Amino acid sequence: MNILVTGAAGFLGRRLIEALLQRGTLTDRHGQLQPIKRITAFDREPVQGLDDPRVQVKEGDITDEQVLAKLIDADTDSIFHLAAVVSSQAEGDFELGMRVNFSATQGLLERARQLGSCPKWVMTSSVAVFGGQLPDNVDDDQVWAPQSSYGTQKAMNDLLLADYSRRGFVDGRSLRMPTIVVRPGKPNLAASSFASGIIREPLSGQASVCPVALDTRLWLMSPAQAIANLIHGHELAAERLSQGRVINMPGLSLTVAQMIDALREVAGDEVAQRIQLRPDAKIERIVGSWPGAFSAGYARELGFTADEDFIGVIRQFIQDYLPH
Amino acid sequence: MNILVTGAAGFLGRRLIEALLQRGTLTDRHGQLQPIKRITAFDREPVQGLDDPRVQVKEGDITDEQVLAKLIDADTDSIFHLAAVVSSQAEGDFELGMRVNFSATQGLLERARQLGSCPKWVMTSSVAVFGGQLPDNVDDDQVWAPQSSYGTQKAMNDLLLADYSRRGFVDGRSLRMPTIVVRPGKPNLAASSFASGIIREPLSGQASVCPVALDTRLWLMSPAQAIANLIHGHELAAERLSQGRVINMPGLSLTVAQMIDALREVAGDEVAQRIQLRPDAKIERIVGSWPGAFSAGYARELGFTADEDFIGVIRQFIQDYLPH
Repeated sequence: MNILVTGAAGFLGRRLIEALLQRGTLTDRHGQLQPIKRITAFDREPVQGLDDPRVQVKEGDITDEQVLAKLIDADTDSIFHLAAVVSSQAEGDFELGMRVNFSATQGLLERARQLGSCPKWVMTSSVAVFGGQLPDNVDDDQVWAPQSSYGTQKAMNDLLLADYSRRGFVDGRSLRMPTIVVRPGKPNLAASSFASGIIREPLSGQASVCPVALDTRLWLMSPAQAIANLIHGHELAAERLSQGRVINMPGLSLTVAQMIDALREVAGDEVAQRIQLRPDAKIERIVGSWPGAFSAGYARELGFTADEDFIGVIRQFIQDYLPH
Repeated sequence: MNILVTGAAGFLGRRLIEALLQRGTLTDRHGQLQPIKRITAFDREPVQGLDDPRVQVKEGDITDEQVLAKLIDADTDSIFHLAAVVSSQAEGDFELGMRVNFSATQGLLERARQLGSCPKWVMTSSVAVFGGQLPDNVDDDQVWAPQSSYGTQKAMNDLLLADYSRRGFVDGRSLRMPTIVVRPGKPNLAASSFASGIIREPLSGQASVCPVALDTRLWLMSPAQAIANLIHGHELAAERLSQGRVINMPGLSLTVAQMIDALREVAGDEVAQRIQLRPDAKIERIVGSWPGAFSAGYARELGFTADEDFIGVIRQFIQDYLPH
């Protein structure tokens, strides 16, 4: 198996590559389990520290057609397309968001179509495709009504991928991801960045700002669970995708207050008190337009899974990233 | 008011221009009723016979960026974007469909954005954005799940238009149209072409093929009603578009058998017997994926209207196109 991972320097991309290397095999388009021979780890900056002979690091601008054309060959079996600019960034710079989040996806899909090799294609969509008047629990037949350019771009990708799959140009699966928590590292420009920040920073002894109301309900998934679901999404037989290629993932539904309660239970009052409430209307508008819970019946039927509870998610983060 | 109509040589485009000329005024972006000074009638072939000094005929390829750039100026107040290739054609030629139905729309929207003048923008979407498991009566919050490239392209346009409108680049309204019957002229490559054909051809003494089962339910609107709704869509104040820029139109829900019954009632048994049933799996697959009825609550709230009954639609067609 020759695999391309875009957004490989990102947090999920990197963890995915590590998981694939450890796993060693993937199922090819004919349903056969095959050894992973090569992983092309592509990002705009070189991916560091993946010292494995199977990894080939490539860097470049995904919005450059010349670069795109060299990312997929006729022998590329599978693509994990994770490259994206995050929600607040796509809202702040419309052209950048359109180029990276949509045009690059379209360009990559076109490249695959022209090769005629019908590679497997796994990508991440987002709860940001939803908005407007929403039920408390969003069903799989809920209309998409993005309230941000990021959500618009992700929804357009989903439509394209479904049509390219229906026509046999790629064998696509788009996983509509919850907000991923707890991310390690620094805050980013995602409108949801605070959801990791209010757990991560206090655990490291730092203050953290919560820019949304305590009763804001979020749909959450841990990084480990996200990686497991990405690989599961790749491994599923195409025949099982009876209700389409775009799959609302299962997740945990928690209010920000419940997240903080869990942090308090795991790490104590002193840690939880490092969170400062400072509402930010811009972030509240974007995050408040996202659904806080999904039925995700199709995903569960297909065997995708959610974290058991948020306390476990916090403990896993501590074990993975704060071992001392 | 300076107005651009794309797809002006098409049946709807032409009737829209005639209706606008007769009307003489439109509401500008500031809510003021203004005289129509110029209508640019654009299509790949020159629009014939619109002998009015306000009409400026332009021909060109809408997929050509040079051509696109010259269609909108800073003084273009309103755009009626109707240019498209029809469903079976977009299914048969993927690249052509993507270029005309999606990329040209994206290019025109980009041009408007770069001008910074926020023109009004009215375009037609399609029931082909729906598919998969559908209720008998489709509500406004039904997810889009196109089963054709045409439906995919229309849905992507709808998403783009909504985001461009939210950001203030254009003041957009996308009207999700039922199947328009009865169209005059010849059959075209729309999968729904038969829906006009089974009325039009028998009335002209010719045989007509019905390629779908008699119990296939269609969502229908007459040409006159479509033009009235396009103009109503333009005239609506932006403040009223509280549930978004993409509006499922009201319509008439009839099975093919009921359409033929109405034809029999209007024109007699001999005429109705000119319809031959000859199922075509390709057309049945596409048409069968479209919903046969919508609640269209948002549209009705906004004052969009449907035809009263199908017998009236047939009689109107006879009066307009078969007066002898």
